[in-house]
Amino acid sequence: MKAEIITIGDEILIGQIIDTNSAWIAEQFNLNGIEIYQITSVHDNHEHILEALKKAEEKVDLVIMTGGLGPTKDDITKNTLCEYFNTKLVFHQPTFEHIKTRFTKLNIDVNKLNRDQALVPESCTVLFNKAGTAPGLWFEKNDTFFVSVPGVPFEMKYLVEEEILPRLRVSGKAKAIYHKTVLTQGIPESMLAMKLEQWEDSLPGNVKLAYLPSPMAVRLRLSAIGNNENILREQVEAEITKLQKIIPDQIFGFNNETMAEVIGRMLKLNGKTLAVAESCTGGYISHLITSVPGCSAFYNGSVTAYSNLIKENILGVNPETIFDFGAVSEQVAKEMAVGVRKVFNSDFALATTGIAGPDGGTEEKPVGTVWIAVASENDVIALKFIFGDNRERNISRSSQTALQILRRLILKKL
Amino acid sequence: MKAEIITIGDEILIGQIIDTNSAWIAEQFNLNGIEIYQITSVHDNHEHILEALKKAEEKVDLVIMTGGLGPTKDDITKNTLCEYFNTKLVFHQPTFEHIKTRFTKLNIDVNKLNRDQALVPESCTVLFNKAGTAPGLWFEKNDTFFVSVPGVPFEMKYLVEEEILPRLRVSGKAKAIYHKTVLTQGIPESMLAMKLEQWEDSLPGNVKLAYLPSPMAVRLRLSAIGNNENILREQVEAEITKLQKIIPDQIFGFNNETMAEVIGRMLKLNGKTLAVAESCTGGYISHLITSVPGCSAFYNGSVTAYSNLIKENILGVNPETIFDFGAVSEQVAKEMAVGVRKVFNSDFALATTGIAGPDGGTEEKPVGTVWIAVASENDVIALKFIFGDNRERNISRSSQTALQILRRLILKKL
Repeated sequence: MKAEIITIGDEILIGQIIDTNSAWIAEQFNLNGIEIYQITSVHDNHEHILEALKKAEEKVDLVIMTGGLGPTKDDITKNTLCEYFNTKLVFHQPTFEHIKTRFTKLNIDVNKLNRDQALVPESCTVLFNKAGTAPGLWFEKNDTFFVSVPGVPFEMKYLVEEEILPRLRVSGKAKAIYHKTVLTQGIPESMLAMKLEQWEDSLPGNVKLAYLPSPMAVRLRLSAIGNNENILREQVEAEITKLQKIIPDQIFGFNNETMAEVIGRMLKLNGKTLAVAESCTGGYISHLITSVPGCSAFYNGSVTAYSNLIKENILGVNPETIFDFGAVSEQVAKEMAVGVRKVFNSDFALATTGIAGPDGGTEEKPVGTVWIAVASENDVIALKFIFGDNRERNISRSSQTALQILRRLILKKL
Repeated sequence: MKAEIITIGDEILIGQIIDTNSAWIAEQFNLNGIEIYQITSVHDNHEHILEALKKAEEKVDLVIMTGGLGPTKDDITKNTLCEYFNTKLVFHQPTFEHIKTRFTKLNIDVNKLNRDQALVPESCTVLFNKAGTAPGLWFEKNDTFFVSVPGVPFEMKYLVEEEILPRLRVSGKAKAIYHKTVLTQGIPESMLAMKLEQWEDSLPGNVKLAYLPSPMAVRLRLSAIGNNENILREQVEAEITKLQKIIPDQIFGFNNETMAEVIGRMLKLNGKTLAVAESCTGGYISHLITSVPGCSAFYNGSVTAYSNLIKENILGVNPETIFDFGAVSEQVAKEMAVGVRKVFNSDFALATTGIAGPDGGTEEKPVGTVWIAVASENDVIALKFIFGDNRERNISRSSQTALQILRRLILKKL
């Protein structure tokens, strides 16, 4: 099945917003076996929309329109659809009841504009929009499906997932899909591909493997296409079980989990706590950890020690160590980790010291040089990295790498 | 002048990447008086590209194609362009020299694929791509301009800014433009609009004012369109001088400056230093500050005090204060600010304590309750805010608000 996405709205054509809807729809449709032939962005303009519909109908089996619906811009799109499908607007009582219920909850009166949202083309099937007020509109004409959804991303997503894809599946035009992403770390993509070659070759014909690019991890997405979602889930889970036997140490999580979430889960499970001492990462590691809801169960806190005096006075780094080896050194990183672990009375500790840039580098220690130390009751280990010359990326990569090293320490695999 | 953007590449149509190029081009072109009629994304496919070019030529005066150029996908696009413009590929020596120079620097041998990048349609004007290897290609046919640029964003941007817009200006098809964004804070958009009404009405006809949406500030973009950039700059600067007299306290910066940069500039200028104590913001304020290059000149560091013990032991908060008023209270926020200022031996200090959520709220202190305190040698001030129930947004808004309050303290306008 071939589809075209038509996005309606001046805001895209003046560059006011980036069209993220199309990429999301394209990905979902592709995963469901529907090829996107073209994406077309047009103005809120009667002739322009008519022309785009006509051209699309010549090429594809499904046209999905986003945008151009909603209280202030309804008129053009809905009237144009009526013209194209040779029908007229009628009042749709269930949609009006839904709008009234939503507005009553918000203590807002329903005005004329909102009432007009309940007007729909007579010949279409109305798709109930639980996520908003403007319903989806589903048309069929000469074996081509046309569907119009609002441009608000979460409303569009709701209608695609809950109304459009299920209908396409029932009609036999879209398949059922199950996908799960495996997060791996500690082995480069090319080596991983070699290691997984045999397993990949043995995958069932309806299960596909994709390597997804990501700055700090290699993500493997397994997608199974078929007719029954339960069977597909079992298939994918069975393959992941095999995968876990091939790379037991490298898999750290699934789907959208972050490294901080994974670490939090491990620490909570074992009743352990964590403290952090940051120099070059400047608070970013602490931010990543505290982005995890409920982190106070395992996280005691951090010190951002931007001056040597703080490293000495609060973290207990020996001034002589700084004098002898410099603030960016294995020795200082280790003393920071040991110090913060003690001061914060924690089981585990993490420390960073480096030159984030753009200035401050030397020949011996160029911009991007970072020492990362981790400490537990029995161990203190420091590793050196040389990242690039971009401050923002250095902070991000140092922080992500530090969390990876901490995970390995907790697993006693460092 | 009307333009169409055609993006070429399967990666957009399978949803692997979000097309950010089109929004950027649309914004730049609109600012230069060129209207975008349509954006069309097509496959790396000969017939499809030909068809898109033909349809675009019927409607617009300028067609800009992005993508479909580069070492591995050159063939289709360039051969299709040759067919459309009835010409053939020829070897372009200056492009080849440029490729060789870039590769020599990277210590890479030039292979056949790279050599083929120097093949260009004979009838086009080659646009030198300083930012990469694939050149831009400029065609003219029946009063319509066609230009093809690589899809890599910074290469595309370089060619649009340095080659395409200047050529369109010379041809009289695009105007010269100068724009500057004024960052304001402390006055809601609707009140600001009323205050600026008279000034806005008196703006010269070629100077436009736009209110740009932003979560923490009201940004005012002034754009002057004309023929001479120097005159336009003078016009805009003159209007900003007037604006500064109307809202002297609200303007905190210009263009892409961040609040942390502005604060850093103020502190450096006065030789003052800063320290931060964070509870609910978890390190994010420290991250915002340390994202500013050279911040060690004014920033001593921070403590993320996620547990009460750390608030007491490191920041010197009185355990009785926590017992009497709770960790999220005016009194604790103030003691944190005073404490971190003293421990870090700093001129100014900032502290946050609150309930970021999603759990931990009570009837008296719901999720989103945040106390922000600032301290200087002579003052300690705390303010209470109630943000929403989203953890991520609470952290971000608390941090941005805290920096705004600090700015006002430094200016002695709190």
